[in-house]
Amino acid sequence: MKSFETVTIVGVGLIGASIGLALRERKGARQVVGVGRHMGSLRAARTRGAVDRATTDLKRAVVGADLVVVCTPVGSIVRLVKEVATASPGTLITDAGSTKAQIVAELDTARVPDRDGRGVPIRFVGSHPLAGDHRAGPRHARGDLLEDRTVVVTPSRRSAVVDVATLHRFWHGLGARVVTLGARQHDRLLASSSHLPHLVASALAATTPDACLPLVASGWLDTTRVAAGDPQLWSEILLSNRDALIKSLDRLERRLAAFRQGIEADRSRRITGLHSQGKQKRDVVGN
Amino acid sequence: MKSFETVTIVGVGLIGASIGLALRERKGARQVVGVGRHMGSLRAARTRGAVDRATTDLKRAVVGADLVVVCTPVGSIVRLVKEVATASPGTLITDAGSTKAQIVAELDTARVPDRDGRGVPIRFVGSHPLAGDHRAGPRHARGDLLEDRTVVVTPSRRSAVVDVATLHRFWHGLGARVVTLGARQHDRLLASSSHLPHLVASALAATTPDACLPLVASGWLDTTRVAAGDPQLWSEILLSNRDALIKSLDRLERRLAAFRQGIEADRSRRITGLHSQGKQKRDVVGN
Repeated sequence: MKSFETVTIVGVGLIGASIGLALRERKGARQVVGVGRHMGSLRAARTRGAVDRATTDLKRAVVGADLVVVCTPVGSIVRLVKEVATASPGTLITDAGSTKAQIVAELDTARVPDRDGRGVPIRFVGSHPLAGDHRAGPRHARGDLLEDRTVVVTPSRRSAVVDVATLHRFWHGLGARVVTLGARQHDRLLASSSHLPHLVASALAATTPDACLPLVASGWLDTTRVAAGDPQLWSEILLSNRDALIKSLDRLERRLAAFRQGIEADRSRRITGLHSQGKQKRDVVGN
Repeated sequence: MKSFETVTIVGVGLIGASIGLALRERKGARQVVGVGRHMGSLRAARTRGAVDRATTDLKRAVVGADLVVVCTPVGSIVRLVKEVATASPGTLITDAGSTKAQIVAELDTARVPDRDGRGVPIRFVGSHPLAGDHRAGPRHARGDLLEDRTVVVTPSRRSAVVDVATLHRFWHGLGARVVTLGARQHDRLLASSSHLPHLVASALAATTPDACLPLVASGWLDTTRVAAGDPQLWSEILLSNRDALIKSLDRLERRLAAFRQGIEADRSRRITGLHSQGKQKRDVVGN
């Protein structure tokens, strides 16, 4: 890709450090700066080769950057984007949060003071890389985490076309496919494709009696795998997509009720039919 | 292992053919005979190296065998075990069915005529290898499918200790860990460790709107993977473990209701707490 001068990554966890690694491996930026609150993670990110420079000083890290990518849990993104915009007005900012509607809505109308103290809009366009791992932290970062994965970019009506194009170029340069969606549409789709599966995996894991654990095989292991994700992080994600998630949960619960009725009434053809519909949908996607 | 003379496998699908492959690779039997209804599967099993001899003639295949393993869908196991016992009274028979209580109960009291026409008990002890794949058929068979997997053997009060020991030796010889459980206890445990995850994976897949499918990532893929299993086969499994499955579903639905309440009331700590319990349970097992 056409190289960026300086890209600053705020939050060097799994996603942030993986973006840094990919940028450095692919020479996508002359300099990658990592910002975090804890020197431990920052040192791990630098040891891992994910950043050229690491600091806890957000202000100094973002001034003059071409692009700032905020890779922190969804609950802190709005605050940090405002801090970045205040420290370096006019710098293009994106994020890697799993929900977008709340974040985009809040930042779209927010203003920060420029050097002359006048309120100016924030130059933010949201992103969501559909990649991750149930293991957290920079130690698990991988330069190929985004390869052949999808990144959704969620511009609003106020977004400049040139900024959206810059983000397409940025994510594409890291090996990802880039899709543009409205923030609310993104959240509706992700409720079913990501947030509900997490909720259900957690519920399945939690309600498995201890005596069953020695007998689990690949079915249980696959179905519950994402329940190992960070509880606080996932709590923030689910709560920031409440309405769409509840609608997805409604659909699932109706389906579970259909299974229950069919099982209680011993209706073999009905249960086979329900399974066939699930299989049909699953087979569309492949393994 | 101490070698068997002839082991006959009834049903050369994924599990049957994998058992045959393992037996032949590990020289666990002098001869492995495969029985099926369709020459296509039988030929595939022989081409795959899973059996020495393949036939559609059940009677001829089982007479004189040391051990017969019935590897067909749960709905046909009782009938086939009776056929095997009738053709070769006194031969030790086991199965590979995913539920055990119904099968063991029916076979425990059944009698078949011996050569003199007298009713004799069936020499059957149930087994359940906790291994599989969402892909079916002998083409996907693997000689290491049972390696380091658990096989549950479910003797009844009538089972001879020597037969249970023979089955331990048989499954252990294929690389598996062997556990002994009562058939009803097996079914109670498997309801949560296998059957409910299948039901939930299917419900999740089926209720995912088509528009979401291009945006699925590892979370959805893992959580719904087993929904690709054979609908008819899974319908039989779920219906043969109705009571235990409904109890597991009750627990899951209560948990989903707790999530719903917490999300609707925007209770962050509550949702984090629910996730923590799921993570704790999932982390016990590992990846």
